[in-house]
Amino acid sequence: MSEFIKSARDIVGEASVLTSKQALEPFITDWRGRFKGEAIAVIFPKNTKEVSEIVKLCVKHNIAITPQGGNTGLCGAATPLANQPQIVLRLDKMNKVRWVSKLHDSIAVDSGLILKQLQMAAETLDRLFPLSLGAEGSCQVGGNLSTNAGGTAVLRFGTMRDLTLGLEVVLPNGDILNLMTALRKDSTHIDLKHLFIGAEGTHGIITGAVLKLFPRPKQKSIALLKLEDFKAVTTLLLALRESFGDQLSAFEVMSRGQLEVIKETMPNVTFPFKIDSAWVALVELSDTRLLPDLAPLLEEMLFENEPLYSEALIAQNSSQGEAFWKIRHSVSEGSKNYGYVISHDSVVPLEAQEAFVEQISTSIKRLLPEAKLAIHGHAGDGNLHVLGIITHHLKLEKAKLEGYTAVLNEEVDRITHALNGSISAEHGIGYAHIKRFKRVTDSVEMTLLKNIKTLLDPHSLMNANKILGEKHE
Amino acid sequence: MSEFIKSARDIVGEASVLTSKQALEPFITDWRGRFKGEAIAVIFPKNTKEVSEIVKLCVKHNIAITPQGGNTGLCGAATPLANQPQIVLRLDKMNKVRWVSKLHDSIAVDSGLILKQLQMAAETLDRLFPLSLGAEGSCQVGGNLSTNAGGTAVLRFGTMRDLTLGLEVVLPNGDILNLMTALRKDSTHIDLKHLFIGAEGTHGIITGAVLKLFPRPKQKSIALLKLEDFKAVTTLLLALRESFGDQLSAFEVMSRGQLEVIKETMPNVTFPFKIDSAWVALVELSDTRLLPDLAPLLEEMLFENEPLYSEALIAQNSSQGEAFWKIRHSVSEGSKNYGYVISHDSVVPLEAQEAFVEQISTSIKRLLPEAKLAIHGHAGDGNLHVLGIITHHLKLEKAKLEGYTAVLNEEVDRITHALNGSISAEHGIGYAHIKRFKRVTDSVEMTLLKNIKTLLDPHSLMNANKILGEKHE
Repeated sequence: MSEFIKSARDIVGEASVLTSKQALEPFITDWRGRFKGEAIAVIFPKNTKEVSEIVKLCVKHNIAITPQGGNTGLCGAATPLANQPQIVLRLDKMNKVRWVSKLHDSIAVDSGLILKQLQMAAETLDRLFPLSLGAEGSCQVGGNLSTNAGGTAVLRFGTMRDLTLGLEVVLPNGDILNLMTALRKDSTHIDLKHLFIGAEGTHGIITGAVLKLFPRPKQKSIALLKLEDFKAVTTLLLALRESFGDQLSAFEVMSRGQLEVIKETMPNVTFPFKIDSAWVALVELSDTRLLPDLAPLLEEMLFENEPLYSEALIAQNSSQGEAFWKIRHSVSEGSKNYGYVISHDSVVPLEAQEAFVEQISTSIKRLLPEAKLAIHGHAGDGNLHVLGIITHHLKLEKAKLEGYTAVLNEEVDRITHALNGSISAEHGIGYAHIKRFKRVTDSVEMTLLKNIKTLLDPHSLMNANKILGEKHE
Repeated sequence: MSEFIKSARDIVGEASVLTSKQALEPFITDWRGRFKGEAIAVIFPKNTKEVSEIVKLCVKHNIAITPQGGNTGLCGAATPLANQPQIVLRLDKMNKVRWVSKLHDSIAVDSGLILKQLQMAAETLDRLFPLSLGAEGSCQVGGNLSTNAGGTAVLRFGTMRDLTLGLEVVLPNGDILNLMTALRKDSTHIDLKHLFIGAEGTHGIITGAVLKLFPRPKQKSIALLKLEDFKAVTTLLLALRESFGDQLSAFEVMSRGQLEVIKETMPNVTFPFKIDSAWVALVELSDTRLLPDLAPLLEEMLFENEPLYSEALIAQNSSQGEAFWKIRHSVSEGSKNYGYVISHDSVVPLEAQEAFVEQISTSIKRLLPEAKLAIHGHAGDGNLHVLGIITHHLKLEKAKLEGYTAVLNEEVDRITHALNGSISAEHGIGYAHIKRFKRVTDSVEMTLLKNIKTLLDPHSLMNANKILGEKHE
């Protein structure tokens, strides 16, 4: 047994350092099975002090550290892929609520807390923690912070950056940076927490956070609308915002192709309408007050905007509303069932969304002639996932599929960049998109990011070979 | 004429470089006359490229740069106080709206734009830019960003950090960092704009910003309440938030002593009540929808919480509401008329506000026996200004007053720190509070701040001798 492993066990205890091949397996592979790495150990510290000591030990032995949350990421950020000895650091044992304040509408938690448990802790206070996403049952707060997670409530509440008041971080030298404040006002210099949110663990290990809570919505009104072109989608969005302001809590769209894919592969999903329009928009209004009743207001507003859509369905009760959402929540599974999904995560300014959809769709038709075109996403945020799905029936080779992906990525990068968008709205860069990130980032910004990385992590141990690449290249 | 001045005139034009003693005077003194510096020139670039060239010229000649907005700051941050040759850089000529988007609820501006003009530009779009503060007629967006300005709408809309989407910054080496995005979702690495917001010009010169706009409120309901102790103030705040959530747009308090000071020195201010309670709270509700009418809802809520207060006045129309606000807006002038104000800008968690008021009041009574105790502030944010005012009648010497200030500052720092607060909620650190900032900042955070400063500004030219002190000490 190496000296490193022995010292690590002295810090966290024998049982909290896994080293056998079999025990490591689930932690060195990402959940989709697209990335596989290597590690000498998986270590489970119990508290911030132990994290700090493990980090110092790693520095001493020049061992890289891959911090891993719930291992639900899409870009390989949590897989140990450095070309040097490395460990995986899991904070599962740091999963407590530290304190709550109803007066301050805030909650302080360990970063190993599972998102679902955080949502439930807020609920017991009669409060809402609004971040909500597919992986919420297993992803952890630390991972949510590290990728600046988005989800379905961004339109109203913003991303993790917007939901965070304070942080606790173990820096790459092992020092503990305590920024665990609930203050909403502080003008003593810059807000250092933003050096770590979205850094995907490359700047340090987030061990705790103070997060914002909100009043719980007491009523919702949900509608599905059929629209014939994207201009109508945009016009409807603006009209809804003019009428309802912050009450508009979701505005999602799905294309006809996307709905056909779900219909074909997800027999359990019920469609309360015929799939015959170019677009279907899902609109959700919500309010923390019971009155006035939103449903008739929505009905009235839609009545006034009738030329925009061909059909509108307003949910008559909450189970119908849930059924509408179920269609939207089926896009990932439905697409995956249908075939190999060539996806992306671009976001563009709302004004550019129509052009973006048009241009990417054209590219997919040209570059991936075998693909089914399916579009869905958070149209209220400018974040549309335009997919090319290659049906499983074609049985194309993996190399060919990967070639298609690379070709489409280049198109997506070019189009997104030209429209002043970003290639990662909510999934991050991780390992998968290092080259793409370089392609779209201007040199002044890239130089600054590299300099900050070198300043914080001079030995390049912290989630090595992610975002900026090996040794920051 | 020095080579530097000649080169600067080649860049920005003859008339945009002032050097005469008389011309420099207004730019080397802060508006309250508390700080006076020295500069070899005041320079007025017309665009970002000229700012970049001036910065490069300064690096070449080793000349420090004090960026100055509207020169309305309270901590000397905009006064040239370095112990080395320096210029003042004014962006008055960069005062344009670059673009607006109703769909994106955002506006892009030059940082030399005056806040009032920004508010008006938003208004012409039927939108609200919520930052509002006493100096809004002359302060500039660049200064607002550099101090992370707060004002009276923080409770609902947050500080400048929360109101900003994108930035354009000329870095200390002259490079232009373009982060002028309106995207509300972006997970490609960290959000670099936060290196500059709140940095008071020490990390670079903010030349442009993309800012959030909001729907304009269509109705307001304003009330004044008399309360007998601070526990009742806190209970009322929580009850209002439970009932009204985001509709609560302001929650301000004034102590009896503060009201007496205004009454005595501001004959134009009308008091629609007798000054006989320990506290008066100003409550404002607002909504972007006209219905339901807020006034009867507020009345009902107050009726249900009657034990909390001894008297309540609800404004019956907007001019009465404005009259209520006029009392609140008179605190600074009233206090200044009354005497020499020994103030501070602490913010503490809402739970700690009662203890904070109690402890600081006790300290003022003990340390400044001649002082009138007056308290006012943003109780909804935890930001209470507890003042000791030494009446002008006493004609105390300046040295004695400054001695009092230093003694009180030490108390404030100790108490604020012990209550997990911050010594600067909204005014910044600047030159005035360098020593205090060191006193309250822990060593891990301070080391990180110094390292970032050295990384960005290795020659220590950018607003030298501010926040961290000369050559970062």
